[in-house]
Amino acid sequence: MEKVTDLAGAVGELDAAAMQAARERQDELTKPPGSLGVLEQISIRLAGITGSVCPSVDRKAVVVMAGDHGVTEEGVSAFPSEVTGQMVYNFINGGAAINVLARQAGAEVVVVDMGVKGSIEHPLVVSKKIRPGTANMAKGPAMTRSEAEAAVMAGAEVAAGLIERGVNLLATGDMGIGNTTASSAIVSVLSDLPVHDVVGRGTGIDSEAVAAKARVIEIAIEKNRPRADDPVDVLAKVGGLEIAGLCGVILAAAVNRVPVVIDGFISGAAALTAAKLAPQAVNYMFASHQSVEPGHQRTLSEIGLAPALHMDMRLGEGTGAVLAMNLIEAASRIIKEMATFAEAGVSASQETEPVA
Amino acid sequence: MEKVTDLAGAVGELDAAAMQAARERQDELTKPPGSLGVLEQISIRLAGITGSVCPSVDRKAVVVMAGDHGVTEEGVSAFPSEVTGQMVYNFINGGAAINVLARQAGAEVVVVDMGVKGSIEHPLVVSKKIRPGTANMAKGPAMTRSEAEAAVMAGAEVAAGLIERGVNLLATGDMGIGNTTASSAIVSVLSDLPVHDVVGRGTGIDSEAVAAKARVIEIAIEKNRPRADDPVDVLAKVGGLEIAGLCGVILAAAVNRVPVVIDGFISGAAALTAAKLAPQAVNYMFASHQSVEPGHQRTLSEIGLAPALHMDMRLGEGTGAVLAMNLIEAASRIIKEMATFAEAGVSASQETEPVA
Repeated sequence: MEKVTDLAGAVGELDAAAMQAARERQDELTKPPGSLGVLEQISIRLAGITGSVCPSVDRKAVVVMAGDHGVTEEGVSAFPSEVTGQMVYNFINGGAAINVLARQAGAEVVVVDMGVKGSIEHPLVVSKKIRPGTANMAKGPAMTRSEAEAAVMAGAEVAAGLIERGVNLLATGDMGIGNTTASSAIVSVLSDLPVHDVVGRGTGIDSEAVAAKARVIEIAIEKNRPRADDPVDVLAKVGGLEIAGLCGVILAAAVNRVPVVIDGFISGAAALTAAKLAPQAVNYMFASHQSVEPGHQRTLSEIGLAPALHMDMRLGEGTGAVLAMNLIEAASRIIKEMATFAEAGVSASQETEPVA
Repeated sequence: MEKVTDLAGAVGELDAAAMQAARERQDELTKPPGSLGVLEQISIRLAGITGSVCPSVDRKAVVVMAGDHGVTEEGVSAFPSEVTGQMVYNFINGGAAINVLARQAGAEVVVVDMGVKGSIEHPLVVSKKIRPGTANMAKGPAMTRSEAEAAVMAGAEVAAGLIERGVNLLATGDMGIGNTTASSAIVSVLSDLPVHDVVGRGTGIDSEAVAAKARVIEIAIEKNRPRADDPVDVLAKVGGLEIAGLCGVILAAAVNRVPVVIDGFISGAAALTAAKLAPQAVNYMFASHQSVEPGHQRTLSEIGLAPALHMDMRLGEGTGAVLAMNLIEAASRIIKEMATFAEAGVSASQETEPVA
C-alpha cells in the first residue's frame, strides 16, 4: 500500500454531537432560525471538524504551491513559463495580490517550490522541488507515479508542519504558468466530462487559442490514458507538481481536523483529486469563490461544494480563498459572540394568524 | 421645491479622470489584466467616487435604522412588534449579529430610532423618531408626505454627521418587524412588478401566511394608490420610517461622495427609492449579498447592481453589508499595495501561438 492511500484512509468522520450542539445554539441566538444562512452552516461544520462548538480560526495560513508545466511548449498560456519563478519572488517580496489580501485577512503566506523550472534560492521559500517542471503531457506522462506520490506527501508534510505550530485555518493557492491546462485535464478525466466543457481562457487567451488548448488536452488524455479510478495515476499523467502538492495539503488538513478553504480552478482540481482519494475529506473543505474558468463550477458540483463569493476572479494564488477566510471567521464569531434570546430579553417567534 | 428634491439634485457625477487612472494602474499590477474581476471594478468605482486612485475606506460605519409598522396588525410577521424595540437594546448591548460582524469589520454601529413604538431612552441611540411606528397601510397611508420627507432628511442628517467626523465607508442596516411587507410594496410599485413576484417569508412565515401577506400588500396598494413616478409618495403611503431614513442615508452618501454598501431587501427597497429620486446615486452604491427574499434580486436588477456574496442570508440589520465591507477594503488595498510588473521584474503577457 502506498503512503497516499494511508493518508487518505486516515481522514475521519465529522463529530456529530458537536454539530448537534452547534445547531441548537444557533437556534437560541437573537435572530430568526436559519436567517444567517451559510454562516450558520459553516459554524455547524466547523463544530463537526474541530469537535468544539466555538472553535478558533484565528491562526491562518495560505499555502501557495508553485510548479512549472512542460505543456507550455504547446503555446497554451498567454504568459511565458519564466513568470512562475518571477512570481515566486514577487510573493516573497510581498507585492503580489495574495500578499495584499493575506495581510488583510491576517494570514501567513507560505510559498512552496514544488517544481519550478530552474533554481529558486530563498530562505523564505519552502523547497519541496520534486523535479524542475513537469514533462510535456502532450508527448508523454507529466511525471512518474512515484513523483506524483512524493508531491502529494510533500504537500501533506507542509500542512502538517503548519498545523503543528498552531495554524487552525488553512487556504490553498497556486502559481504555475500552464496549470489551467493540467487542471482541465484532471477535471475532465475525474468527472468524466468532455474537455470542451472544462477548458477556458486561463490568464487570458483568445477563443482560437482556447480551442487549440482543448486539442492539446485531448491529445494528452488520449496518449497517456489516465485511469479515472486511480487519482494518483491522473495526477502523474496529466497533472502538475503544485496540484499534487495541494492535494496533499487538503488531505493532511482533513486528517488533522483543520478546515481548509479551497481557492479557484487549480485548487479545485486538487480538491477533486483529494475527494476521489478520500470522499470524507470533502467535509473539511470550504469553497471560496466562483471562478470565471468554466471548469470550476463543474469541479465544485462534482465535489459537492458551493462558493459564497461571486467576484468574476480568475487569478489563483489563493486570492479567492483568503477573501473567503473572512466568512469562516465571521461564522466562528457569530456562534461565539451573539446573545441568546434569553440573555437579551428578546421575544421569540410566534404563530402568525394569517388574515382571512 | 421640497428638501428631498434638493438633496437628490445635489448628487454629482463620478470623476472620469480618476477612474481612467485607476483602470491604467490596474493593468500595470502583477496579474493578468482583469483577473481580479469585481475587486478591480470596485477599485475603479471608488476612484470615481472619491476622486482618488488609492482612497482610504478605513473609517467604517453601519447605520442601523429602526422603525415599527402598523401593518403588523394584519399578522404579516412571525415575530411580535415589541421585538423591534427589544432588538434596539440588543444592538446597544452588543449582542446582535450586526454587532458581531461590525466588530470583525472594524465598523462602528450607529443605531437610529426612526420610529420605534413606545419610548427608546438610551444615550447611544440616535433619536430621530418621526412618529411611534407607521399606521396600518392596509387601512390608509403609512404616514403623511411631510413625515416621509422628514424621515428622508433625518437619515441624510445622520449620514452627513458621520461623514463630517471622518467616516469614509458607510453601510445600511434595518430593524423593523413588518418591514419586508413595506419593502415588497415599495418594490412592487416602483418596479411595476406583481406583488407575488416580490413577496417572501420574511423572518419565517409559512406559504399560507405568505399568500395572506401578499393580499395585505395588494389591498394597501389598491387603497392608497401610491404614484410610481413620485418615490416620496410611495414611501409615505406604503413605506416605513426606517426605509425612508435609509433612503436619506444613501442620498447623503452620494452627495458627499462616500461609498455606501447596501444590505439586503429592506435596504434594497431604500436604495431603489434613492435611485428613482436620483439615478446618479446608483454610482455610489455597492451591493453586498443576495438575500433569500425573492424580491431582493428583482430590486437589485432594477437598480442595476450585482451582489458578490451568496450566503442565503435573510436577517437584515446590515449584516450582509458589513460582511461585504471586507471586499471593498480588499479592492482598495489591491490598488494601493500591489507591485507593478516593472517594480517586480515580472514578464508581461505574450502573444500565444496556438498549436496547429
